[in-house]
Amino acid sequence: MKAELIFTGTELLLGQILNTNALYLSRELAALGIDLYRITTVGDNRLRIRDAIVEAARNSDVVIINGGLGPTEDDQTREALVEACGVREVIHQPTLDKINDYVRVRNRTPLQSNEKVAKVPEGAQVFVNSSGSAPGSVLEKEGTAYVLTPGPPHELMSIFEEHLRDWLKRRFQLNEVIRSKVFKVVGIGESSAEERIRDLINSPNPTVAPTVKRGEIHFRVTAKAPSDVQAADLIAGMERRFMDELGDFTYGSDQDNLEGVIGALLREKGLTVSCAESCTGGLLTSALTDVPGSSDYLEFSAVTYANRWKEEFLDVPQEILFKRGAVSREAVKCMAEGIRKKTGADIGLAVSGIAGPGGGTLEKPVGLVYLGLAMEEGTWSRKQMYSGGRKVIKELSARGALVLLYQGLKGVLKDDGR
Amino acid sequence: MKAELIFTGTELLLGQILNTNALYLSRELAALGIDLYRITTVGDNRLRIRDAIVEAARNSDVVIINGGLGPTEDDQTREALVEACGVREVIHQPTLDKINDYVRVRNRTPLQSNEKVAKVPEGAQVFVNSSGSAPGSVLEKEGTAYVLTPGPPHELMSIFEEHLRDWLKRRFQLNEVIRSKVFKVVGIGESSAEERIRDLINSPNPTVAPTVKRGEIHFRVTAKAPSDVQAADLIAGMERRFMDELGDFTYGSDQDNLEGVIGALLREKGLTVSCAESCTGGLLTSALTDVPGSSDYLEFSAVTYANRWKEEFLDVPQEILFKRGAVSREAVKCMAEGIRKKTGADIGLAVSGIAGPGGGTLEKPVGLVYLGLAMEEGTWSRKQMYSGGRKVIKELSARGALVLLYQGLKGVLKDDGR
Repeated sequence: MKAELIFTGTELLLGQILNTNALYLSRELAALGIDLYRITTVGDNRLRIRDAIVEAARNSDVVIINGGLGPTEDDQTREALVEACGVREVIHQPTLDKINDYVRVRNRTPLQSNEKVAKVPEGAQVFVNSSGSAPGSVLEKEGTAYVLTPGPPHELMSIFEEHLRDWLKRRFQLNEVIRSKVFKVVGIGESSAEERIRDLINSPNPTVAPTVKRGEIHFRVTAKAPSDVQAADLIAGMERRFMDELGDFTYGSDQDNLEGVIGALLREKGLTVSCAESCTGGLLTSALTDVPGSSDYLEFSAVTYANRWKEEFLDVPQEILFKRGAVSREAVKCMAEGIRKKTGADIGLAVSGIAGPGGGTLEKPVGLVYLGLAMEEGTWSRKQMYSGGRKVIKELSARGALVLLYQGLKGVLKDDGR
Repeated sequence: MKAELIFTGTELLLGQILNTNALYLSRELAALGIDLYRITTVGDNRLRIRDAIVEAARNSDVVIINGGLGPTEDDQTREALVEACGVREVIHQPTLDKINDYVRVRNRTPLQSNEKVAKVPEGAQVFVNSSGSAPGSVLEKEGTAYVLTPGPPHELMSIFEEHLRDWLKRRFQLNEVIRSKVFKVVGIGESSAEERIRDLINSPNPTVAPTVKRGEIHFRVTAKAPSDVQAADLIAGMERRFMDELGDFTYGSDQDNLEGVIGALLREKGLTVSCAESCTGGLLTSALTDVPGSSDYLEFSAVTYANRWKEEFLDVPQEILFKRGAVSREAVKCMAEGIRKKTGADIGLAVSGIAGPGGGTLEKPVGLVYLGLAMEEGTWSRKQMYSGGRKVIKELSARGALVLLYQGLKGVLKDDGR
């Protein structure tokens, strides 16, 4: 079972964008046990795309081609494939209807280019694109399967998740099973976490591999086995050992994310939360509201960017703002308590820090951020030093506040943090 | 002057690492005016690397090969190249001495594998590696130059910076300059924008290529010329033609972003803005505060997620919320006017919509979003239909509100939008 990948896009050859689709697809194929032999990237040139397809097909059972399915002149991928395979193009009517509906709702004039997007190779199986217009498709010809996938990453992912993975499994009867499970850890440093599970990290099967992501550590446990049951057993065994060492810091696995786990905890406990944000500028509340149904526990948040609003709206005493500054342990505790009182929410969560690039001093440098949490059990604050550009510091601050909230909900915050 | 790149490394085919070296090298080659025709990635397999080299050499003046020069068994790139070219390997004595010194200083035993690292193709020009052990090299054979470069990104960069760039310039007498400029367009659909500049898009030099990104269209104009001045002239000429057609929709170029341009306009006019966000949950204010110094024009925003807060805090009449709903033209206008009045900001900006996945109805489906803008000149609202997942809809809604604000600041909003 051999596969090749072809990426089309002059922007890739000019170094204008990083090929994250290559990472995504190659990882997904590896997880299916499909041997990827080669990745080829060519520009938006029909002839060269065609040659790459012909060349890739010589040694492959499946050739997955990504990009160049859009409405513009330089989108030439489908045209190259039908030329390589000697088939015609046909309109995929459901896609054209969807595009025309979209155009009609917006009172725009239908364009010739819409038809181009709705075309697929004749005889191909069509994968409907739930995140965009251009459909995916698979054409089988002389022992090779040619798969067309759209270039925008979220469209590629939805085509893969909703159609292509299952199609590959069925079509090629993939039966060496590779299963993996990711454990997500917060509130402990990477080195300390790895010390605790050093011997697990050296295990050959299942393997355990860490990635650091936005203030979290994700440990991917991967098992290979002849059957689903055996792979699941291997993972379960490793999970027990992992949890013995890092269970206190593990908030979830796989598709879980911290905001979702927090949402479930809030709902379970029947609690509401309200945020007072300064340096994060709304990003913390945005993360909390990334969770469907978050209106059940979040009704209101305030971005109190100026000191005036910290004082007037959150009742932070002028004296504290004057003597300690808005970026201080005292101020952030008052902000958390203030938003809790003002809104009547069960929990108040606050962030105040210096996101930079300006505004730092020797005493309070760029990256200094205070987090505050006020709940029935008490008020906590936490000091953090982040490094990175303005957006990175905002992001890490929002994630840090989520960790504090999570720990508060789990009841693991110590008294001395008050 | 045609080039191809080959990357070797099974980890790339397994999706374990992102190929940032491809981005780096392709960008550097583009800046030198070298046409990159193809990027090929293969695993650590001598035969397949050799085949990729032979295949790449057929059409190229230069083939740059990256990775697989290390000490381990699976490092097979140099072995593949000498096989492809039919030359021998020789030890590069200065490199071997350097490695032996390194080993001696650390009281380690010299290893057989050190010799492997110090080998280069016979007849090759050697590029000493100042950031690691394995040297780079270039072998010229039958009209093609084969360049070997080490895989670790910082080693690749130091080889390129210290040796390879100059070598390429000298060897191929590169005196063609490539310059590009990106024009950023909002408030018009991709197809309509392209209709307007169809003949520009077909221009061979400068070329004009569109990319769609988060509700914006970016047109990259790329010119090739014998000198900097001539390239700049070509770009300037294209810019005039581009602006004739799309100037009304072009907010900036290159590193400009919409929130930054809005910030500059607000500061120039001495205006402040305050947001009332519903479905964006803080993301709109977060975008505005991504701009350094945004505290000059943004003091406060409210995330009024629950209807109670739209009513109590923003004074949206209960009747409107009841009869029209929170996701309506009337409600979003009241929200914009309400936050403007409440905060005393010059401009109120509001968003209310259905981000999904739940909460949609036939009449008000997921993706329906209203945007509102209240300023001295009047109040405008806009209806949008976005598609995508919850986070995509949030993102597009925030970008849509920025576009509305930008158009308000530029004074291009029509009366009938009120």
